[in-house]
Amino acid sequence: MNPVLDIHAPCAAIDTAAMAAARARQATLTKPPGSLGRLEEAAITLAGMQGTPLPTLDAAWISVFAADHGVADEGVSAFPQAVTGEMVRNFASGGAAISVLARHLGARLDVVHLGTVNDPGPIEGVRRAIIAATTANFCTDAAMTAAQLQAALDAGAQSVALARAAGAQLFIGGEMGIGNTTAATALACALLGASPTALAGAGTGLDAAGVRRKIDVVDRALRRHAGADAPLEQLRCLGGFEIAALAGACIAGAQSGLPVLVDGFIATTAALAAVHLQPGVRDWLLFSHRSHERGHAVLLDVLQASPLLDLGMRLGEGSGAATTVPLLRLACALHAGMATFEQAGVSSG
Amino acid sequence: MNPVLDIHAPCAAIDTAAMAAARARQATLTKPPGSLGRLEEAAITLAGMQGTPLPTLDAAWISVFAADHGVADEGVSAFPQAVTGEMVRNFASGGAAISVLARHLGARLDVVHLGTVNDPGPIEGVRRAIIAATTANFCTDAAMTAAQLQAALDAGAQSVALARAAGAQLFIGGEMGIGNTTAATALACALLGASPTALAGAGTGLDAAGVRRKIDVVDRALRRHAGADAPLEQLRCLGGFEIAALAGACIAGAQSGLPVLVDGFIATTAALAAVHLQPGVRDWLLFSHRSHERGHAVLLDVLQASPLLDLGMRLGEGSGAATTVPLLRLACALHAGMATFEQAGVSSG
Repeated sequence: MNPVLDIHAPCAAIDTAAMAAARARQATLTKPPGSLGRLEEAAITLAGMQGTPLPTLDAAWISVFAADHGVADEGVSAFPQAVTGEMVRNFASGGAAISVLARHLGARLDVVHLGTVNDPGPIEGVRRAIIAATTANFCTDAAMTAAQLQAALDAGAQSVALARAAGAQLFIGGEMGIGNTTAATALACALLGASPTALAGAGTGLDAAGVRRKIDVVDRALRRHAGADAPLEQLRCLGGFEIAALAGACIAGAQSGLPVLVDGFIATTAALAAVHLQPGVRDWLLFSHRSHERGHAVLLDVLQASPLLDLGMRLGEGSGAATTVPLLRLACALHAGMATFEQAGVSSG
Repeated sequence: MNPVLDIHAPCAAIDTAAMAAARARQATLTKPPGSLGRLEEAAITLAGMQGTPLPTLDAAWISVFAADHGVADEGVSAFPQAVTGEMVRNFASGGAAISVLARHLGARLDVVHLGTVNDPGPIEGVRRAIIAATTANFCTDAAMTAAQLQAALDAGAQSVALARAAGAQLFIGGEMGIGNTTAATALACALLGASPTALAGAGTGLDAAGVRRKIDVVDRALRRHAGADAPLEQLRCLGGFEIAALAGACIAGAQSGLPVLVDGFIATTAALAAVHLQPGVRDWLLFSHRSHERGHAVLLDVLQASPLLDLGMRLGEGSGAATTVPLLRLACALHAGMATFEQAGVSSG
C-alpha cells in the first residue's frame, strides 16, 4: 500500500550539533584549514543531515521515474515519443547511462514506470505504477487531474519509503520522458513568474528553430493556465507524472530525514516546486551538477545552490547526481580517515 | 639503478585511430549526442592515450615527492619548515589526505623523500632518494646545482618507471614542501615572463601582508636570476627538488606513453616547465582541478587546459588529481558499458 504524501507535514530538523562537531574536526585534520574546499563543506553538511559527526555514504539509492507528456504532440523534442517506453526497458536491462552508473557505484536502481504511450509491458526490475499512458497536452488542458497529481506525488514518496527501508543514506531521483524539458520549463516559468525565453533550452538537442517553437508552446501553456497561481495547481497544470514524483520524493525525503541529491534541470524544477510547496525541503537538498541546459543556472540561483560539478552534462536520468556520488564518498572518507595534527605529530602552524 | 632522463627524447604518439573509434562509439550509445559532456571527451582522450577504443582506468599510481626549500628562510609560509618532514611520516602512516584518497581509490601510493631539513629517517613505505636536506635560498643562490637538478628529474622518471612496471594506467604526481608555492610562483613567472603580482597567492594560508612579502621575495629572486632564460636553467635556479621531479615525471610519462593527471598550482607549474622543455609532453597531460591558489587559472589558460573539477581545493599532495579519478573511471564505465541504440532497440531520433 502506497503512503499518501501530506505535503504540509513538517520536515525533519538538521542536526546542527553534529555539523558543529564535524566542522571542529575538520580544523584538526593534517591540512591547512579549508584546503579541501567544497569537500570539507560536503562532509559537514552530510554530518548535519545524518546526525553524526562522521557521516558515511555507502548506500545510495537511485529512483528513475519514466512518464510520457501530452505536450510531445507539439513537436518539442528531438526524439520520438516512443523512446520513453523503450528507455524503460533499457534502464532495466542495464544499458542506459544511469544503469551503468548505478552498477559502478553499487547503488540500488529503482525504475518506476508511471505511464508511457508505448507501454513496454511488465519488465523484471521495473515497478509499474501506471497513472495513465500520458499527461494531457497542457497547451489545451491541465496536464493532470488532481487524483493523478496525488498519485504521482505518492509514487515519489513510495520510492523514498523503499529507499529508507533498504537503509539508503542518500536518495537520487532521475527522470525520463520525451518532452519533459518543455514541461519543466513551463512549470519553472509559472513558479518563478519568469519568461520562457529566460529558461527554454535545447533539451535533448533542438536547433534554434526548435527552441523558438518550444518557447511558443510554453508561452501558450502559461497563458492557458494563467489562473494557476498556487504551486500545487501549477504542478498539476504544467508538470508531468515524473516531475511530480520527483517533487514528492524531495518532500518525503525531507520529512523523513533522507538527503536528496538533486540532478539537472528537470529534477531541479521538481525540487523548486517541492520547496514552494514546503519550504523546509530546502535543508535536505544537495546539488550535484550544473547542467548544460540553459535554464538550470537560473533555478540554481533561485535555490541558492552551488552544485559540485560542471561537466556540461544534459542527459537527465539522475546521471549528473550519480556522477557526484564518488565526490561525496571521498569527502566522507577524508573527513573520517585523515589523522589530526596531534595524532600524526605534525606541527599545526 | 635510476633511469637517466633525457629530456630531448621524443614523446610517444597519441593513437588518433583509437580516438576516432571511441568518438564514433559515443555517437551510437543510448543518449542524446554529447549529453554526457566532459565525460564523453574524457573517454575519447583516454582512448587516444591508451591506444584502445575502450579505455579502462583500474590501476592508478600516485607518487608524492617531498622536499624542503631554502626560500622558506624568507618566512613565506604559514607553516614551519619542520612540517615537510613530519608530513613524510604522515603520508606513509596513512593519515594524510592523499593517503586516504589513495586507499579509497585502490591506487598505489609511492612516497618519495627527496630531502628535508627535519629528516624523519628511514620509514617503511617511503622511498629515500635524498638529494640534499634542502634547496638553496634562490633569493641569493641557484636553488639547485646541475647535478641536483638531474637527480630530481631522474627521481620523477624513476617513479614513472615503477608505475609502468606495476601496470599503472594513469600517473598522478603530488608534492609536499613548505615554501613550494613561492618556488612555483617564481618558476612560473620566469617561464612566462609574468609579474609576481599576477601569480602569487595565499599558499597554505598567508594573509595579505604575507602575500606582499611573498611577492617581494619572488621579485628579488627573479632579479637575481634574470640571466636564466632557458627553461632548464630557470627550473634549476628557481624550482625545487619535488617540482623538478614532477617535471621529470611529466616528461617520462609522455615519452613512455603513460597519461599524467596534473594536480594543482605547483604540479601545473611543473607541467608547464616540462612542456617548455619538451613540447610533446602536452599531449599526455590530463588536467584534474582548478585550484583555489590564485595563479593556477593563469597557468591553465597558458596550457589551454580545462580541468574537470573546481572545488576550491588548495592542498597539493596530488589530492585534487586523486579526487578526479572516480570521474575518469565513470567516463570509462559509461563509454564501455552503455548499450547502443541498436542493442537496446531504442529509436535514435
